[in-house]
Amino acid sequence: MGNMVKPFLQGRRLLETFLVLCLLVYVMDLPSAAKAAGKVNKHVWDVRYNYVSPDCYKKLAITINGLVPGPTIHAVEGETVVVQVTNSLVTENVAIHWHGIRQIGTPWSDGTESVTQCAIQPGDTFVYQFVVDKAGTYMYHAHYGMQLGDGIYGMIRVKAAHKEPFAYSSEHEILLSDWYHKNAYEHAIDLSSEPFVWVGEPNSVLIQGRAFACNEPGTEAGQCKEPNRKCSPFSLNVRPGRTIRLRIGSLTALSTLSFEIEDHEMTVVEADGNYVEPFKVKHLYLYSGETYSVLIKTSPKKDRSRNYWMVAKVVSRESSTPSGLAILNYNFNPPLALPPTDPPVGPHWNDTSDRIDQSVAVKAHHAYLNPPPKKSDRTIILLNTQNKIDGKVRWSLNNVSLNLPHTPYLIALKENLSYVLDHKMPPDSYDVENYDIHSVPKNTEAHPSTGGLYRLKFNSIVDVILQNANTMTPNVSETHPWHLHGHDFWVLGYGRGKFNMATDTASYNLGNPIMKNSVPLHPYGWTALRFRADNPGVWAFHCHIEFHFFLGMAVVFEEGIDQVGELPDSIMGCGETKPFVKP
Amino acid sequence: MGNMVKPFLQGRRLLETFLVLCLLVYVMDLPSAAKAAGKVNKHVWDVRYNYVSPDCYKKLAITINGLVPGPTIHAVEGETVVVQVTNSLVTENVAIHWHGIRQIGTPWSDGTESVTQCAIQPGDTFVYQFVVDKAGTYMYHAHYGMQLGDGIYGMIRVKAAHKEPFAYSSEHEILLSDWYHKNAYEHAIDLSSEPFVWVGEPNSVLIQGRAFACNEPGTEAGQCKEPNRKCSPFSLNVRPGRTIRLRIGSLTALSTLSFEIEDHEMTVVEADGNYVEPFKVKHLYLYSGETYSVLIKTSPKKDRSRNYWMVAKVVSRESSTPSGLAILNYNFNPPLALPPTDPPVGPHWNDTSDRIDQSVAVKAHHAYLNPPPKKSDRTIILLNTQNKIDGKVRWSLNNVSLNLPHTPYLIALKENLSYVLDHKMPPDSYDVENYDIHSVPKNTEAHPSTGGLYRLKFNSIVDVILQNANTMTPNVSETHPWHLHGHDFWVLGYGRGKFNMATDTASYNLGNPIMKNSVPLHPYGWTALRFRADNPGVWAFHCHIEFHFFLGMAVVFEEGIDQVGELPDSIMGCGETKPFVKP
Repeated sequence: MGNMVKPFLQGRRLLETFLVLCLLVYVMDLPSAAKAAGKVNKHVWDVRYNYVSPDCYKKLAITINGLVPGPTIHAVEGETVVVQVTNSLVTENVAIHWHGIRQIGTPWSDGTESVTQCAIQPGDTFVYQFVVDKAGTYMYHAHYGMQLGDGIYGMIRVKAAHKEPFAYSSEHEILLSDWYHKNAYEHAIDLSSEPFVWVGEPNSVLIQGRAFACNEPGTEAGQCKEPNRKCSPFSLNVRPGRTIRLRIGSLTALSTLSFEIEDHEMTVVEADGNYVEPFKVKHLYLYSGETYSVLIKTSPKKDRSRNYWMVAKVVSRESSTPSGLAILNYNFNPPLALPPTDPPVGPHWNDTSDRIDQSVAVKAHHAYLNPPPKKSDRTIILLNTQNKIDGKVRWSLNNVSLNLPHTPYLIALKENLSYVLDHKMPPDSYDVENYDIHSVPKNTEAHPSTGGLYRLKFNSIVDVILQNANTMTPNVSETHPWHLHGHDFWVLGYGRGKFNMATDTASYNLGNPIMKNSVPLHPYGWTALRFRADNPGVWAFHCHIEFHFFLGMAVVFEEGIDQVGELPDSIMGCGETKPFVKP
Repeated sequence: MGNMVKPFLQGRRLLETFLVLCLLVYVMDLPSAAKAAGKVNKHVWDVRYNYVSPDCYKKLAITINGLVPGPTIHAVEGETVVVQVTNSLVTENVAIHWHGIRQIGTPWSDGTESVTQCAIQPGDTFVYQFVVDKAGTYMYHAHYGMQLGDGIYGMIRVKAAHKEPFAYSSEHEILLSDWYHKNAYEHAIDLSSEPFVWVGEPNSVLIQGRAFACNEPGTEAGQCKEPNRKCSPFSLNVRPGRTIRLRIGSLTALSTLSFEIEDHEMTVVEADGNYVEPFKVKHLYLYSGETYSVLIKTSPKKDRSRNYWMVAKVVSRESSTPSGLAILNYNFNPPLALPPTDPPVGPHWNDTSDRIDQSVAVKAHHAYLNPPPKKSDRTIILLNTQNKIDGKVRWSLNNVSLNLPHTPYLIALKENLSYVLDHKMPPDSYDVENYDIHSVPKNTEAHPSTGGLYRLKFNSIVDVILQNANTMTPNVSETHPWHLHGHDFWVLGYGRGKFNMATDTASYNLGNPIMKNSVPLHPYGWTALRFRADNPGVWAFHCHIEFHFFLGMAVVFEEGIDQVGELPDSIMGCGETKPFVKP
């Protein structure tokens, strides 16, 4: 009751003094890299609605400081990034996740609503503070409802303080996304409908927040005389004869993309903030949540007097969405002068083999090997199935479809509010012997749960085998981009068909597996990951397709909760962490 | 810090016991009428998005249990109404106001975000509990952002336990609203834009949640052969030869309406829950926030073999919005059979005199007189002006434009969090002598404030003079429907031009003024109210046009805050009432 509020509120002055002391202790306790860098990298963001029309269709977007994509965070490894987020949405809450940042020592800054914090209420200011301990290309985006799709995302460039295993004369970022004219609320209605209404394919693919619309409606890009200036495409100016680093990331709500630059081969050198043994590609597949750095040569042999197409094409689904187009603008040509050629058509949408080949090709750079432990302590096999639960379409892992709890896991577990969670532990495997991954699931047992929580032994080595299967449509298995919070994992291998524990483990790459935070699960295939549960906190592991996550395609890992420091008060205020909530 | 959370949370059991005891004390303390009625009138509501298309345009609405308007609350005077509201909006908060219910003893159940409570977060369930102590026609609606316009509203019928001064054989409700195809977020963007973007006129006027669309597009109603069945109009079935009570309310976001039933005179018998000395009208003006009961006779002299039009026409603005149409359906005719006549054209939009005449005609029923005190203890004159503040269009009272504070007034004042509010008391008057109400305001002094708070002496008699003026457009003065929470007030009079304290007070109706909670301020005119500040709490007084309220057209009255009981915990959780908020 209210009488308990007063003494606390009157104690605010005391609290403030205490907080200053805590902050001091906290700063003194920062990892050494941060202390070395000694720099705080501060950003002040206002999250608000704005009309945008990246593809010439006017839509109300959720923006950061009015921008889609939001401002890029430029930092140097070891720095402490502080982002002060004010929610200026009128009636809507928000939370922002720092995708790829491991949040070592700051699990409460992960920005995952229902997992690590309560959403930020309108008018509130929330301060995210974390160390970017590792150079690389990272991203941020809303992690609440399906707000990501409404435009709240951007990139984080963390520069190396050390010498990198490649050289370049300039660097640029290219954030890829897909774009719906419907908004997140409409998507929520569709996905919660009975009968189920699928959101459908996106209206556009955006390259660095822009689509390409021809000034003459209905004209194909190759025949287009000039782009519509009202929504002109992204144009990247380059000088000839240089080596250029492109930091490419994908934050699509749904689509897997193939990115290609006409007549320019790309050398892959970084994946999710880890150095890659360089290899060349004509087109680069990106699954939502992935980042890559590639080098391109603006070779002098090429015709400098023209521009070239950049193309982002939807693959892995037979999509009606036109490819995203942008312009590689050679210096001294007009930025929006159209290339005289047709844009590259890109790979076949259903060339799964080609996509697996790229997945397998991504290996750790030989000079930056960090080989995995030879064995794991625990193996969790997650069968990915589409199910119908209570008449509604859902996604499940081992027949558990996650309903995000009302009180965030991190707080519930740290503060021993165990009664807010479903106590039944989700299973470590499925009926491997009898389940037919090539058939429509019978799903008689699938159920929703606010559990979905795997409690991991601190510092143990955990293998996760993602096992794909048939959806509810005969002969269809989808691609799922899986993303793990709080960790990089070793990618031990990809395979086709049903994973066989007895034989497939022998094929693991234990020599030079790449470490990543996001990884595809290919149709009817399996993907094997290994990570060390050494980051105290609670971490989401989920399909990065917004709609699949919304429909339950996620689990949560807890490790070392007892080693998590005092939770900041600012993450509370919802569910059981509201003050004095009535029973 | 987090360490303070634990002891509290561990004390929950104790708290729960305490709460049960409190509830017991509370129930024992209910007004006698409630005890007499002894009945709890319980409702379980789920606030969620749904597509609706009342005018054949599909829009995502905020609904209660899927409905627009929401379910009607049927109660008997003296009952305790309990509404358990679950917020199933995905990322958006909500609050619901019980319009016209005085909330005696329950100021925390008034449902006014920023004034009496924190908004209800997604997934949360909030319980509104209050006594409907007086028979009459009331309404409810969202009181957060501009959510009202997205469809979250409905009616409250409180039946008399006593004999009423009129008889009828059946009763029906007719809720009027206006309808925009744009949503509340888009309106917020428009109204916050620089240059200012006015939201414009509504797309439709709804009668009981329905518009009239002709099956042949572009055909006028009189020429229409049949209504579009996909969005068929409201049809009210009546039997001939009866006296019927219509409970009519308006919850428009913008529009003043004239309501008329073809060939059926209406006898006004109730206004805002108070009995009216009966008078007849051909058309009834309704300002947003008002309710009326009228009696109609389905006279046998009329042609029973046809239906009749009901029309709700926009007045007081030269609107492009087509009039709302519905059908009075005489029994045994097809419900949607169109009347053979053209719908009545209604009064001229700018016939201010006719509207003032109706305002003046509404007087208390002679058998239910409750005359006002002869004198007031304090007079507050509120000059209504449109201003430009920081480049943005705003509305001000005595040059103060209200910015709703982040911590609700009720909590801030009760818990002595005085630092969250602007301490400068707003003025009780304006420069009456020198201000020219017929000119565009010079507004050099207008400023936004989280103050706007008038602290009233408990049980004192307060007069409020609403003084209209010119807007920022030459020769324009708008109509403002003012609504007071927590009270009925006596309507002492209406006048034209500038109110003159020396002479106009003499014209006050102190004999049989009607009591209301909502009242119009006519263009270039004044309206005088009197009320007794005898309801401990904090109460909003504001223009009921959603957009004007959003732009600052509100003040807040505090009275007897020391007599307010312990605040329920459930109203907290925002601003300074979040647990342990960092400074």
